[in-house]
Amino acid sequence: MFDLYVVTDAGLSGGRSDAEVARLAYEGGADVVQLRMKDTDGKVMLEQANAIREVADEMCKLFIVNDRVDIAMASGADGVHLGQTDIPVEVARKLMGDDAFIGVSVDNAEQAVRAVENGADYVGVGSIFRTSTKPDACQALGLGAIFEVRQAVDIPVVAIGGINRGNIQDVIRAGADAAAVVSAVVAQDDVRAAAHELRDLILKVRPHIPPENL
Amino acid sequence: MFDLYVVTDAGLSGGRSDAEVARLAYEGGADVVQLRMKDTDGKVMLEQANAIREVADEMCKLFIVNDRVDIAMASGADGVHLGQTDIPVEVARKLMGDDAFIGVSVDNAEQAVRAVENGADYVGVGSIFRTSTKPDACQALGLGAIFEVRQAVDIPVVAIGGINRGNIQDVIRAGADAAAVVSAVVAQDDVRAAAHELRDLILKVRPHIPPENL
Repeated sequence: MFDLYVVTDAGLSGGRSDAEVARLAYEGGADVVQLRMKDTDGKVMLEQANAIREVADEMCKLFIVNDRVDIAMASGADGVHLGQTDIPVEVARKLMGDDAFIGVSVDNAEQAVRAVENGADYVGVGSIFRTSTKPDACQALGLGAIFEVRQAVDIPVVAIGGINRGNIQDVIRAGADAAAVVSAVVAQDDVRAAAHELRDLILKVRPHIPPENL
Repeated sequence: MFDLYVVTDAGLSGGRSDAEVARLAYEGGADVVQLRMKDTDGKVMLEQANAIREVADEMCKLFIVNDRVDIAMASGADGVHLGQTDIPVEVARKLMGDDAFIGVSVDNAEQAVRAVENGADYVGVGSIFRTSTKPDACQALGLGAIFEVRQAVDIPVVAIGGINRGNIQDVIRAGADAAAVVSAVVAQDDVRAAAHELRDLILKVRPHIPPENL
């Protein structure tokens, strides 16, 4: 299982490379880093993917590539995250094999059920709140979407979109297994501390975590 | 071997799908069609790739995907064409295997030699002439680049960039094994006739083709 899922955004990282940010995020407590680079040439994306793969191996953490199944395979990523307009999950599964960890973005329960049928390992639900980091995202779905998807599927549900220290506990209480963040980690001066704080906030509302571990 | 290589461009195809254009181009005599879709979602590109794959199979022709190794693999394309900023050819080879037909875009002999060392099956040299279909292409290289690359490598050399009925014989005379065209085929009202004419023009300047076959 994973709690805190960090998605990269080079444009928000203040000149730091995605791999640098990934290292700090992992150190702070991120369980998963997803490399997301839109409109980037394959060569550059593969270089960043290889760099993050190395860091993730060192720290025994999960590494996921957004959208590009080829970059995921070439870099030895643990998996790929697919939107509704990317390569279908069943096609990615065929290319990547049973061990790959494949996530699918969904807006609602119907898409989530279909993702499960097609072999997804987890679903990302969002955008939950308004966000500036994904300009093409539809309007905010609200916390109800997490609950709806949570009721519909048995695989992990990751909430994404506009999540920060002020609302991260709400998304967990609404039923998300994990929270995915972008600017709340990668845009911060102290990436490590930001990740650490967010993970702490998640663990504090997890009913099944014994208090002495908090 | 192949003579006429057609690269798709949905924006120039007057509302016809890339697969429709591919069928007409193959019928007219294109040996290879390359599906090139920049900034297109994976799902849409895979749908076009699957459609062209079907046509190519029917007609025993070669089908190549630009840039996206994952789309090439998922659609069962014969190979992939890679630019200098795409996934490196040796990485694509590892993912796709020995049977894949992998091409690399080069500007000069040095890049062509490196492409061969890294396992390319053919090189694309261009842009030979000025062209509006690839706005990010550098200025025209001229026919000398074909000759230079031809001298440097033993794999097939495909000339690309601004090639049309008026200059296609020049590129073959300069040493190209094949000519790749975009608008000279896909933007024409009669795609089949355009491909047929261009292939005829190529064959007429091939010294090794017995005249009775022309």
